[in-house]
Amino acid sequence: MKLKARILDIQTGGKRIAILDDETASFMGIHSSDRVEITFKGKSLVAIVNIASNFPRSYVGLFQEVSTKLGVKKGETVDVRGAERPEGLEYIRAKVRGERLQENEIKTIVEDVVKQHLSDMEIASFVTALYIHELKMDEIEALSKAMVQTGNILNFDKTPVLDKHSIGGVPGDKTTILVVPIIASAGFVIPKTSSRAVTSPAGTADRVETLCPVNLTVEEIKEVIKKTNGCMVWGGALELAPADDIFIQIEYPLGIDPLLLPSIMSKKKSVGATHVIIDIPTGIEAKVKTRGDARTLAYDFIDLGKRLGINVQCAVTFGEQPLGQTIGPALEAKEALSTIMGNGPADLREKVISIAGVLFEMIGIKNGKEKALNLLKSGKAEEKLREIIEAQGGDPKIKPEDVKVGDKKEVIRTREEGRILWINNKKIAQVAKEAGAPKEKGAGVKLMLKLGEYARKDEVLFEIYAERSSKLEAAVQLAKNLQPVRLSKKLEERMLMDRIPKKTVSKKIFMLER
Amino acid sequence: MKLKARILDIQTGGKRIAILDDETASFMGIHSSDRVEITFKGKSLVAIVNIASNFPRSYVGLFQEVSTKLGVKKGETVDVRGAERPEGLEYIRAKVRGERLQENEIKTIVEDVVKQHLSDMEIASFVTALYIHELKMDEIEALSKAMVQTGNILNFDKTPVLDKHSIGGVPGDKTTILVVPIIASAGFVIPKTSSRAVTSPAGTADRVETLCPVNLTVEEIKEVIKKTNGCMVWGGALELAPADDIFIQIEYPLGIDPLLLPSIMSKKKSVGATHVIIDIPTGIEAKVKTRGDARTLAYDFIDLGKRLGINVQCAVTFGEQPLGQTIGPALEAKEALSTIMGNGPADLREKVISIAGVLFEMIGIKNGKEKALNLLKSGKAEEKLREIIEAQGGDPKIKPEDVKVGDKKEVIRTREEGRILWINNKKIAQVAKEAGAPKEKGAGVKLMLKLGEYARKDEVLFEIYAERSSKLEAAVQLAKNLQPVRLSKKLEERMLMDRIPKKTVSKKIFMLER
Repeated sequence: MKLKARILDIQTGGKRIAILDDETASFMGIHSSDRVEITFKGKSLVAIVNIASNFPRSYVGLFQEVSTKLGVKKGETVDVRGAERPEGLEYIRAKVRGERLQENEIKTIVEDVVKQHLSDMEIASFVTALYIHELKMDEIEALSKAMVQTGNILNFDKTPVLDKHSIGGVPGDKTTILVVPIIASAGFVIPKTSSRAVTSPAGTADRVETLCPVNLTVEEIKEVIKKTNGCMVWGGALELAPADDIFIQIEYPLGIDPLLLPSIMSKKKSVGATHVIIDIPTGIEAKVKTRGDARTLAYDFIDLGKRLGINVQCAVTFGEQPLGQTIGPALEAKEALSTIMGNGPADLREKVISIAGVLFEMIGIKNGKEKALNLLKSGKAEEKLREIIEAQGGDPKIKPEDVKVGDKKEVIRTREEGRILWINNKKIAQVAKEAGAPKEKGAGVKLMLKLGEYARKDEVLFEIYAERSSKLEAAVQLAKNLQPVRLSKKLEERMLMDRIPKKTVSKKIFMLER
Repeated sequence: MKLKARILDIQTGGKRIAILDDETASFMGIHSSDRVEITFKGKSLVAIVNIASNFPRSYVGLFQEVSTKLGVKKGETVDVRGAERPEGLEYIRAKVRGERLQENEIKTIVEDVVKQHLSDMEIASFVTALYIHELKMDEIEALSKAMVQTGNILNFDKTPVLDKHSIGGVPGDKTTILVVPIIASAGFVIPKTSSRAVTSPAGTADRVETLCPVNLTVEEIKEVIKKTNGCMVWGGALELAPADDIFIQIEYPLGIDPLLLPSIMSKKKSVGATHVIIDIPTGIEAKVKTRGDARTLAYDFIDLGKRLGINVQCAVTFGEQPLGQTIGPALEAKEALSTIMGNGPADLREKVISIAGVLFEMIGIKNGKEKALNLLKSGKAEEKLREIIEAQGGDPKIKPEDVKVGDKKEVIRTREEGRILWINNKKIAQVAKEAGAPKEKGAGVKLMLKLGEYARKDEVLFEIYAERSSKLEAAVQLAKNLQPVRLSKKLEERMLMDRIPKKTVSKKIFMLER
């Protein structure tokens, strides 16, 4: 049917939506959520129909993605006709019914997701079904491969390619900023791509961005790696496993994360990683609560790695409190820089050399932790960090005091004496966010006392930094209400709780609660 | 945060959506699918955020539902701030995790659905979880009650209030057009609301609309009932259990229907029905394939009815072929009119008096079927139908030949001799739709031979009617490809296969595959 285009100058984030009025849709026998094929001057694409009750008849409303792709302008005539449901939808329905999907069926779903042939509702139904029915490892493997194949794949001419990933949940985890230069300074390639914070006060990309640009193209990344062996960039615009980004956006309001394994591992495969360490912070304050759960999850990562041709080891780390003292992009980058220069908190240093050490041992180097410590102590890691900062377009001479933190500051004090018994990760993160993090990079929290430390009454528990007075006030108020740090007796603290070098028994797929 | 309103003159079908640009949303710490509270001159409402990458900063885009509700005009300043997730979302998440929901939790979800506080994604996740986990009868009861409470409730001063419903799946089912006048002519109230076709070639509202208007207000319906005891109106705009309409729209692309029971029964409760017969067409060609499944489903209807204070009986009817000869709104209305005037096909008459007979017996009248037959034969039912047509605004003198059917006609003939062995309900419906039904009311199919009848070679199997030549041609072509009617030997035919007066044993909830 010939319809006139009405262009809606809004980008829908990739979604391909065509708006039809009630009457026109009904005449065409088309319902909301049906697909139409829109053709203009030989080009055509499939869009999902939204029906509007007051839209002009014989018009079709096109959001920018569609009009740009087709090159249609306002008032021009396009041909709109009913299109078949995408094949992927049949397989989603099969998954909802509880069927086990074949590799080619999963590939079709992922392709349809990336091509924007599936609606948010349909993808929401799919991830819900995956969550409830639980995925078999064959399906996880097929999903991971399909997610890699439908995106960009980086290729560096060197091997091995090392990488690390933390499943997150511990505020203040700036490990990457030290591990990458340690590994790179030993001559190994580590092309680290990171995300920005979604619900946390700082993602690695947010932290690194206070030291140098992170928004690099694929070509620029290759150049940085060629020069320095390492990089620390934002992965969001590189189209590495782009299906993952779409799934994550839909999982977010639902609060489920059935695609944790394929999500992480597809990104690693897309950068060509051959050896990967997965950090699983564990504890009642972390995402993974028990060592048993950590081990089950670790086995799944190892198994999936094997299927994708990646050597994976997992580090189960102490996740009962924030790492180091600081939370918030600039505060954390500053702390990481201090630490690589020889200062900084012991728990951060311990975690960094443990993680880097495992990576070294995975590629056959003995006493990996010692090697990592030496690279840190000798200044080689610092030198490498500065090279990477320069290669990414930052100032290689940057000093910790150059990293600008919020100039509004307030302290929260103990109300009584005692030992720090408990630091609530979620609550302390909330305070940092209330202060403005991650958007206001100078905002955050600095913990002056950590688990097991002894405090007198009226001692400073933590400092809150902000860029605006109003946010500082709000954060102070929230801190007083939430009381994220509680006092009492001593606890032991050791960063690396467990290390899982290979899978020994088969268990059911671990399903992480977000 | 103060933002300028940009009004998007599109109605989103009730959904409350606010568009923010990337930067503004990120500054406010708001993600896509988060809620914001929008306040303007003392009025405020909650909307769901969509993030657009090229939207002007410090603006908020408001679709018509939101701008109208708040009375905001282009360029006016509104206050936008992050709002809590709706409580219903927490319960949806609990359902996804497999928890059994309490009555008040279900009520909260349904209220949030009706208030448009939940996104399509979230509702899709909910119905998917309901489908996979299966609902317990307590939850079905709570859903039904919540759906009734969040909508309009009709109240007629007479009692009993009778009603019927068919779960559908059999093309050409014009039973309602005869049952309503039979019941009403006996002096009983039967306020029948019907839907339009969604995927079928005709819904009852589409059929009746060729005889008289069906788009009545609640007040007009009351008037019609007062005058005639019966009505046959479109229920879509009456706000009876409006949550159901939202659920149905989201279930449609997913191809699941976990809310079948609450959907049907909430509508019945909303019109104040005290006695309801549910028609369950059964057979390999129908939605319900076996008598066992029909019985399970029937028990659920009876159980739910009891919980809602409605006396329910179910009729398991022969669903292996279309009912009567005709499929398509006008063709069916014409056939119904003929039948009430004493002509028409035997299977239709038999089904009508069986269904009406059960309803009579449910309210204590003996020999219900005989009574129904007498009302039909005596012309009282016809007289009542004409009263209802007049009361709804139609011409009470309408004759079958006044019902306008498509003037383009083509016949499909047998290719060999034999008995009609098999009529594929779905395929014959597809042919009627290809001819233009339900939108083009004169389009459809008239079957000249039905199951078990003997045909010579080149005899007319069915006629296709259309309003346009192009659609007629397409339907003929489709009919030739699909061959919806196949020939061979004789089959017995009896309309009422089973009748289930009350629940005898408890079974698992029946889940219907759409």
